[in-house]
Amino acid sequence: MDVKIALLAGDGIGPEIVAEATKVLDRVAEKFGHKIEYRPALVGAAAIDAVGDPYPDETHAVCLAADAVLFGAIGDPKYDNDPTAKVRPEQGLLRMRKSLGLFANLRPVALFDALADRSPLRAEVVRGTDFICVRELTGGIYFGRPQGRDEEGARAFDTCTYTVSEIERVLHVAFRLAVSRRRKLTVVDKANVLETSRLWRETAQRVAREYPEVAVDYMFVDNAAMQIIRQPAYFDVIVTENMFGDILTDEASVISGSLGMLSSASVGAEVALFEPIHGSYPQAAGKNIANPMATILSAAMLLEHLGLDAEGRAVRRAVDRALAEGVVTEDLAAPGEKARSTSEVGDYVASQI
Amino acid sequence: MDVKIALLAGDGIGPEIVAEATKVLDRVAEKFGHKIEYRPALVGAAAIDAVGDPYPDETHAVCLAADAVLFGAIGDPKYDNDPTAKVRPEQGLLRMRKSLGLFANLRPVALFDALADRSPLRAEVVRGTDFICVRELTGGIYFGRPQGRDEEGARAFDTCTYTVSEIERVLHVAFRLAVSRRRKLTVVDKANVLETSRLWRETAQRVAREYPEVAVDYMFVDNAAMQIIRQPAYFDVIVTENMFGDILTDEASVISGSLGMLSSASVGAEVALFEPIHGSYPQAAGKNIANPMATILSAAMLLEHLGLDAEGRAVRRAVDRALAEGVVTEDLAAPGEKARSTSEVGDYVASQI
Ligand SMILES: CC(C)[C@H](C(=O)O)[C@@H](O)C(=O)O
Ligand SMILES: CC(C)[C@H](C(=O)O)[C@@H](O)C(=O)O
Repeated sequence: MDVKIALLAGDGIGPEIVAEATKVLDRVAEKFGHKIEYRPALVGAAAIDAVGDPYPDETHAVCLAADAVLFGAIGDPKYDNDPTAKVRPEQGLLRMRKSLGLFANLRPVALFDALADRSPLRAEVVRGTDFICVRELTGGIYFGRPQGRDEEGARAFDTCTYTVSEIERVLHVAFRLAVSRRRKLTVVDKANVLETSRLWRETAQRVAREYPEVAVDYMFVDNAAMQIIRQPAYFDVIVTENMFGDILTDEASVISGSLGMLSSASVGAEVALFEPIHGSYPQAAGKNIANPMATILSAAMLLEHLGLDAEGRAVRRAVDRALAEGVVTEDLAAPGEKARSTSEVGDYVASQI
Repeated sequence: MDVKIALLAGDGIGPEIVAEATKVLDRVAEKFGHKIEYRPALVGAAAIDAVGDPYPDETHAVCLAADAVLFGAIGDPKYDNDPTAKVRPEQGLLRMRKSLGLFANLRPVALFDALADRSPLRAEVVRGTDFICVRELTGGIYFGRPQGRDEEGARAFDTCTYTVSEIERVLHVAFRLAVSRRRKLTVVDKANVLETSRLWRETAQRVAREYPEVAVDYMFVDNAAMQIIRQPAYFDVIVTENMFGDILTDEASVISGSLGMLSSASVGAEVALFEPIHGSYPQAAGKNIANPMATILSAAMLLEHLGLDAEGRAVRRAVDRALAEGVVTEDLAAPGEKARSTSEVGDYVASQI
């Protein structure tokens, strides 16, 4: 198979971890007889520095022409403490999501046998955890207008808004996922306070009738923030709006105790995008110490998305082997054990394919 | 001292747990020679049922005339799954907060020695945790307008808005608290996406100059949702806006593993209000099984707020004794141990004053 992958390495550790993922993909291509063509493109602070735009038109064209996008990370501390900066890396990320129509972000909360003791939760709490969060990614307060300040600058405002069709399409993604899993869906909202949440709940109640085999429950977001930690094994599929999803998926990512292992997929109208969830980790940039596993596993998701299931499985098995053999970066190295570099981990995983 | 307390028992288990708190307060009054006068008033679903309004004017007048308000809980499942209900218990709660000017909600995240093994987190993660969340309570998306639907009902919208002065006053509460504690303040926002958050961050950066002795850091809300679980002992004081505070304080409440023990204070312009954080727990209503400790400890906070520190301490010591002796409701009873009823726990705590 001929595969065209847009490579958006981005900021911080992005370039290093994406390089390890392509190393592994190259080995897959060799082994399984595929031809992978990479199209690198600029995004984030790196793109601002190079061309003054965090998501240049050319990058957008590269994504649209690709079979899938492999994304590293964006974000640079020089923007975070300057709330007045006019051009920001995050704008690129948001524009990319919107213009590629990536309306559903899927995040499996995975446990790794070899890392069972890394969870901050007690073993008996975390046991049996296996759920996936579906976060709406192109609506809500991230994109609602008006957003701004009043004339004197003494008042700021953001708008949260959703249409029925925006809610329906992501609900269908979540319901279909539930059908393919344990048939349980938790819809998270704040319907006791927000009008947008009431529209979510009404719409979910209606769409649920099309999936009678799925058991649906409704949970307020504050309660969900508790239950994800108190009884993570309760959940199968969680679906929620953009801002709640941002918070809850990051909270949920803590459960496994190995943030550096978690990948995600964003799907929608155009092309699908795959990325590690951990962000640009600027303190580690250029040091060859960041964990490339989440990006390598994002590449596995990408392969599976293209229907290359055996190939995806091969990558996952190679990752498991690296974990079992203790070939891991410093974030996962057991006390007293030698941490490997980013590229050593990538080399090892590739060698196991 | 003569003390006038407005008693807003509210819904679900509210009446039962508030009754135990007044039992304990009565014992304090007797022991320390105070005179406490209670003024009961309607709120929540109970008030809708009685007079058609979840926060009647008369209740407001009772609160304003009191030295402090002791609040039970509001909420009734019959409203939760009816997103179209016109009058809702939560409206009463929100109107009460707004009209009493309760702009800062303070939630200590407390660990109890006797309950150390109840946390869902590993002992080594939770060790040393001692922080307090300050949640802005009368602004943001809870109160911003416009809120509603477009004409066809196919689009819903909410508005998040903050003024500089709303942000400043709650920041001052948080900074002063930090000064009285370990001098560390974490400001939580989403300044990489929201305009209101950028105003929060700018304002915090400015106000921070008035408190040079406080070490301030800024954290995005998604990251905060992770760090509260990964390293809860990192925090001293956390301050954030209303919606983020709703989610993060509930998340943080899980750390101790004993939700039924956690109390909160809401302070502001007029009178201060004290309440357990656990909500109306309708499944337990009328069964004499709910844990009254959080409400009893809210009464302790109330006493301390009125300057009655020895009295507050006496209540806390009595609660510790009940825990040490295993005089606890079913939520805290050790496996194989007998659970006590709500009123037995209240009796015991009162007897220990
Ligand atoms: C960088 C930021 C804008 C982004 C978001 O909030 O969506 C990130 O936190 C994420 O979850 O991908
Ligand atoms: C009942 C609800 C409106 C309320 C809130 O969201 O503020 C509750 O969750 C709380 O935290 O007191």
